[in-house]
Amino acid sequence: MQEAITVGMVVFPEFELLDVFGPLEFLGNYPADFQLIILGESTGAVPSIQGPSIVAESALSETPEVGILMVPGGIGSRKFVNNSEALKEIHRLATVARYVCSICTGAGILARAGLLNNKRATTNKLAYTWATSQGPSTKWIPHARWVQDGNTWTSAGVSAGMDMTLALIAEIHGSERAQEAAIYAEYTWNNDPNMDPFAGPAGLLD
Amino acid sequence: MQEAITVGMVVFPEFELLDVFGPLEFLGNYPADFQLIILGESTGAVPSIQGPSIVAESALSETPEVGILMVPGGIGSRKFVNNSEALKEIHRLATVARYVCSICTGAGILARAGLLNNKRATTNKLAYTWATSQGPSTKWIPHARWVQDGNTWTSAGVSAGMDMTLALIAEIHGSERAQEAAIYAEYTWNNDPNMDPFAGPAGLLD
Repeated sequence: MQEAITVGMVVFPEFELLDVFGPLEFLGNYPADFQLIILGESTGAVPSIQGPSIVAESALSETPEVGILMVPGGIGSRKFVNNSEALKEIHRLATVARYVCSICTGAGILARAGLLNNKRATTNKLAYTWATSQGPSTKWIPHARWVQDGNTWTSAGVSAGMDMTLALIAEIHGSERAQEAAIYAEYTWNNDPNMDPFAGPAGLLD
Repeated sequence: MQEAITVGMVVFPEFELLDVFGPLEFLGNYPADFQLIILGESTGAVPSIQGPSIVAESALSETPEVGILMVPGGIGSRKFVNNSEALKEIHRLATVARYVCSICTGAGILARAGLLNNKRATTNKLAYTWATSQGPSTKWIPHARWVQDGNTWTSAGVSAGMDMTLALIAEIHGSERAQEAAIYAEYTWNNDPNMDPFAGPAGLLD
């Protein structure tokens, strides 16, 4: 039997709730396959932008490695990109991770950590100018629900992280498992990475 | 200017992550209208079924009142329905709340607290037999994304709580505001309470 993959979800003050808990809902329902760990600058409570606090279980600098590294967005990402110590740790963890993922403006954090250089990526459509400015050499894709480039997966805003996560489950365990995970949560999976109702000519690009 | 409505989200050990954080994502992005508070049996960290812990900010018994009372589901609900002290507090808070809502098997908790007697309600389709058995006098609706009966709103499984919450925002602040909240999270709102892809003849009813 295959060992469970450790999923390290990074949190920082004023993270976006659904960026974090949408993906963890799906992954966390398969504890034999995915073991979740919340990574903070230090251990303890970290407040979301919406108010509620989550408990960080491991400090970034004390986390030896994770199988899947996930970085959410939220308004706090604009401050977090200037935390060079945290970005150094994210870079270290990403280098050995099997998959590196971002949700929403988390792509701006990956970019500033030097992890999206010359890679295709996407991000939130309502914060597109800011997020894309964090990665001048990144090939930003404006019309995408999520983008995969090698082992790097980046999603559009907030709830797009759920669709990307199901696609990641499909990549690792097959699409039947991903459909099962979606149905368990009574969630209608948009499984087409190019189907982005929130971008394009009639869309939200700022 | 109208005062913000306090939203009290109840948590208990082994709650379902998305039941809690889907609704709070939408409500929490309007802090002038909705003030979130996490209610536990006591204050402090409460672990979800998926692993991560949330911080309960107020004990149920020490919470004087909330404007909107929300009760999530998750496997822990099967134990929580036997916590008569907590159910008594939920009943007390519900009696004075402007709206009483459940997500997923949270309807089983509301039922056991005596809050769904002779009311129309729905719940998770994968735990339908258990949840409905908690309310013998409830008029359970098997095919519904969510059900509104007076000030009582109950949703189907997990992600259905997000669609119900957007409908509640529409009820309070108009549908334009609800659409705005959905778009902000790049979420495709199923705004038809009768459109339930997870029930009916081809569905999941256990």
